[in-house]
Amino acid sequence: MFEVIFEDEETGARAGKLKLKDRTLETPGFLPVATKADVKLVSPDELNQMGVQGVIANAFVLYLRPGIEVIEAAGGIHKFMGWNGIIFSDSGGFQILNKDFLLKVNDNSVTFKSPFDGTKHEFTPEKCEDIQMKLGSDVAMTLDDCPSYGSDYDNILNSTKRTIGWAERFKNAHKNDSQSVFGIVQGGVFKDLRENCAKALVQMDFDGYAIGGLCIGEPKDVMHEVIGWTASLLPPKKPRYLMGVGSPEDMLEAISKGVDIFDSVFPTRNARHNTVYTKRGKINIGKEKFKNDFGPIDEGCECYTCKRFSLAYVNHLLREHEYLGMRLATIHNLHFLVNLMRMAREAIMDEDFINFKKEFLRDYMNS
Amino acid sequence: MFEVIFEDEETGARAGKLKLKDRTLETPGFLPVATKADVKLVSPDELNQMGVQGVIANAFVLYLRPGIEVIEAAGGIHKFMGWNGIIFSDSGGFQILNKDFLLKVNDNSVTFKSPFDGTKHEFTPEKCEDIQMKLGSDVAMTLDDCPSYGSDYDNILNSTKRTIGWAERFKNAHKNDSQSVFGIVQGGVFKDLRENCAKALVQMDFDGYAIGGLCIGEPKDVMHEVIGWTASLLPPKKPRYLMGVGSPEDMLEAISKGVDIFDSVFPTRNARHNTVYTKRGKINIGKEKFKNDFGPIDEGCECYTCKRFSLAYVNHLLREHEYLGMRLATIHNLHFLVNLMRMAREAIMDEDFINFKKEFLRDYMNS
Repeated sequence: MFEVIFEDEETGARAGKLKLKDRTLETPGFLPVATKADVKLVSPDELNQMGVQGVIANAFVLYLRPGIEVIEAAGGIHKFMGWNGIIFSDSGGFQILNKDFLLKVNDNSVTFKSPFDGTKHEFTPEKCEDIQMKLGSDVAMTLDDCPSYGSDYDNILNSTKRTIGWAERFKNAHKNDSQSVFGIVQGGVFKDLRENCAKALVQMDFDGYAIGGLCIGEPKDVMHEVIGWTASLLPPKKPRYLMGVGSPEDMLEAISKGVDIFDSVFPTRNARHNTVYTKRGKINIGKEKFKNDFGPIDEGCECYTCKRFSLAYVNHLLREHEYLGMRLATIHNLHFLVNLMRMAREAIMDEDFINFKKEFLRDYMNS
Repeated sequence: MFEVIFEDEETGARAGKLKLKDRTLETPGFLPVATKADVKLVSPDELNQMGVQGVIANAFVLYLRPGIEVIEAAGGIHKFMGWNGIIFSDSGGFQILNKDFLLKVNDNSVTFKSPFDGTKHEFTPEKCEDIQMKLGSDVAMTLDDCPSYGSDYDNILNSTKRTIGWAERFKNAHKNDSQSVFGIVQGGVFKDLRENCAKALVQMDFDGYAIGGLCIGEPKDVMHEVIGWTASLLPPKKPRYLMGVGSPEDMLEAISKGVDIFDSVFPTRNARHNTVYTKRGKINIGKEKFKNDFGPIDEGCECYTCKRFSLAYVNHLLREHEYLGMRLATIHNLHFLVNLMRMAREAIMDEDFINFKKEFLRDYMNS
């Protein structure tokens, strides 16, 4: 299912291939976020055109709206959203345990109120597995208890134990080989907890392992340290997925620590707020100074937006709050990250990853 | 420049071709509205795919934002918005004379405050001509004084005289043959005023004639009557453009009175509010009852949305206020109207227009 094609000797960076039936995700790979069964503003055909191979939807959100029975009746989430690439489904643990929605959590289940209509719902690991099975995603994620950053050791110890227990119950409930299951390692920023969680999950033999609970407020160096601890404990032959991390510099750092897969709302959300990635760093393309810039957003970029429209035009659309501007900026940002992963992959296979990373970051961080 | 290929003997319906340099608009033809140099949510390539041959931008809006100098520097509006089809530019008279913006109007000029920043601007017909020339649109529209529906005879007499005077000054200011100019007939719902205005403009020998000041609150039968009076006074060899009218039933009625060209914000605005056209009439696709409708929005429709996605999916996106839902609904609505014009054209050439109109309206109006 997962094949490591090449591993960089100096770092732990890997080039691989995740094969799920007739669908393939080349790694390092980036999953745009399709929470509500769509990547905001972008069509599935545009995702294909920019080389996206996988997205991540949210089982919890789709369970509430439109309801799992609708997606089942459509013939599964691929057919519902009209996309034949890989679809991961997030359990929604991260959302459910948000203090705005959480009513009660114990080792058995989590009870929350719907952000849509306030109705009360209870999730168990078994129910969460059932929902994702019915969604028909290619990869289901276990239900995890993701504590907020800054919680004390005892709290995180407790939620890590719960995460482990829930992962086991999720795995036991999962009977159907047509869907892969990834376990999510939690443990906050505590090395022993991350280690215990990773070891416990590895014993359960998941199809892949995610590192969760990062990029939620902790300092960057702490995040990088936790990634290093955790990745090193995960089995080399299984894919490693760092959840919710999507800045170019963090992704390259994580790749060098052996991470294969990423998702993040950054590229889509940033685009809707005028922020785009370029080789020379992030820029706010809504600024007045770009009014007369008739070159592309990023010189040399091969995305649809850069090949077809000027920065001045996208600037005008964004300043006027035209949705087409957000759409064109979104296409550019997604293409940028997908292309960054493609370049990283090639560099790994060319035994040139360290150099590639250094040169990319020199241009990207200095601007 | 304009060629009537076939005229229906029973009605006044015409099939024609408007050639503007290397750009062609087959008529009857519909122009989606691109007020701010974009058709909301839709890319120029999508416009091409759905068979759109022309759009109408707004000179007044673009003069304020991003500024005519930006569009000039881009090499004109076609290059700025990345579209090589026909572009009409509206003078903005309709907007400028809106009571929210209007500061002062007399026979010489109109003074208004910018809806963006409150700054004061003065438009003369000469300035309006200059702006549209600099935009580089294929067809410029004269500056007109469009009174609101319900104004009394003396008011409308006055604004019609002003419209005639402004049209003449606009024409005199226009020296460059690379751009066509259409005069706009006003006169409210008064037959003698419409007739006087039409005759005066025809004497000035414009490249085409628009019927303005309709679909602003008057009853439908009054609108149809005014279209009939006015169209019959316009020279048969020149194109006739009914501004701001975009419901299928009104368009077919106007075609049968000899109108060739239409524009309207209806299809795009309706789509953003969940209303789409189907062969069986308008429907609100945001309704709960469409949750499990896995067929297309309109059976047999060849638009991108209908070929790729289910009504249930678009329903879900719209209920969740996802922009992609608005985008897919917009594509469907624009395709519907462009296709309606194409079918009307074919029916005219097949000497079957009356029958086509009757059958279309039977299905469309009965639902």
